[in-house]
Amino acid sequence: MTESTSAAEGVAISDPAYQAAVVDLLGVISCAELAAFERLAEDAKLAPELEDRIALVTMAAVEVDNLLKLRDRLASLGVDPHEAMARFEPALEAFHRHTSPSNWLEGLVKAYVGDGLARDFYAEIAAFVDVETRELILASLRRDVHSEFVVQRVRDAIAADPRVGGPLALWGRRLMGEALTQAQRIAADHDALSALLAGGVDRPGMDLASLGRMFNRLTERHAERMAELGLAH
Amino acid sequence: MTESTSAAEGVAISDPAYQAAVVDLLGVISCAELAAFERLAEDAKLAPELEDRIALVTMAAVEVDNLLKLRDRLASLGVDPHEAMARFEPALEAFHRHTSPSNWLEGLVKAYVGDGLARDFYAEIAAFVDVETRELILASLRRDVHSEFVVQRVRDAIAADPRVGGPLALWGRRLMGEALTQAQRIAADHDALSALLAGGVDRPGMDLASLGRMFNRLTERHAERMAELGLAH
Repeated sequence: MTESTSAAEGVAISDPAYQAAVVDLLGVISCAELAAFERLAEDAKLAPELEDRIALVTMAAVEVDNLLKLRDRLASLGVDPHEAMARFEPALEAFHRHTSPSNWLEGLVKAYVGDGLARDFYAEIAAFVDVETRELILASLRRDVHSEFVVQRVRDAIAADPRVGGPLALWGRRLMGEALTQAQRIAADHDALSALLAGGVDRPGMDLASLGRMFNRLTERHAERMAELGLAH
Repeated sequence: MTESTSAAEGVAISDPAYQAAVVDLLGVISCAELAAFERLAEDAKLAPELEDRIALVTMAAVEVDNLLKLRDRLASLGVDPHEAMARFEPALEAFHRHTSPSNWLEGLVKAYVGDGLARDFYAEIAAFVDVETRELILASLRRDVHSEFVVQRVRDAIAADPRVGGPLALWGRRLMGEALTQAQRIAADHDALSALLAGGVDRPGMDLASLGRMFNRLTERHAERMAELGLAH
């Protein structure tokens, strides 16, 4: 998928530094899925129709299913999964506190754009780990059609009143900014994760140029999602 | 399961009054599952440990899975599933508003005792409908081991401080009282459902004696659950 897809092949999973990075990665994604569950469950209450509320709680339930798979994997690595997750709670809580939707449409845009951004980001990092862990992570990030309804609802709202588009476009930019802030904080606070990206003697890492390219890919996909919703990036 | 298990065999599903009752029954259970999801998601925030929080959000996610199956069945009957559910929102919201847990242990007892009571009640009513609908309902009411942890947590809390047992026992009685109040309200407000229980020319119903026996069964199972938690009924 990316230039680093095969970066981790041949890495000894018994290497403690590598193990720590995998535990961190599984921990942060599990924690993000729990936080996303709570946010979606909360935002569902803003839904104007029962149908919309059910669509959002369904997205919330999918987060739980994914979280449980990652938690089991953490347990199978011989670590306390809850400890691995708890380390990331402050950053994820800060993200959600700073991006608390003030209405139903902001909640929908966040469920689509914020969630998509997070998934792209974790998928990029997953390129640096072994195949088995990577496949588990990618499977847990996969979404089915649930979020299709978000696109329709947002486009319908803009068609009904074009004035809602401007504030929602700003909101999308703010989600991107907050996500980057917290991603940076997570990387700074968790040495094992940054070391994973930096590479080592026996495994390739990311130099500044490839970090730049990764950032470009994330930004492009964010812009695509905004465009799908009918919002200017 | 009950004396009326075979009550609905041979009932013409095309009978409009019977159809209306089935739609009501599927509607009230779906709506109850959505309400239970919201309550469990909310109460999970009170969890002292991440492990407990995950246990509760897992129970919440199971409610969504069940709700979706019943919603699909409603749609296949040619009715608007959201309309069928919406009729029961006031009664279910009232139940949850009147039984809002003031702490984590009350939330746990409610998740176990309140949920168990509701399931027993719907299972009793399901005895009056056709096999296919009944099996769908019973499957949606089935729980796996998720709630085992509730029993352990409550027993541990009482062992650590026996004084918490008294208030929790009172809380369990209050849950029973509120559940009966709302069940009565639902029966009074929804003629099709009460007609289902009362029976008709071509199908047996419940007389006062069998209604009394049903009430006894519900009370007995409630007492069993309270005892499992280490609480006096």
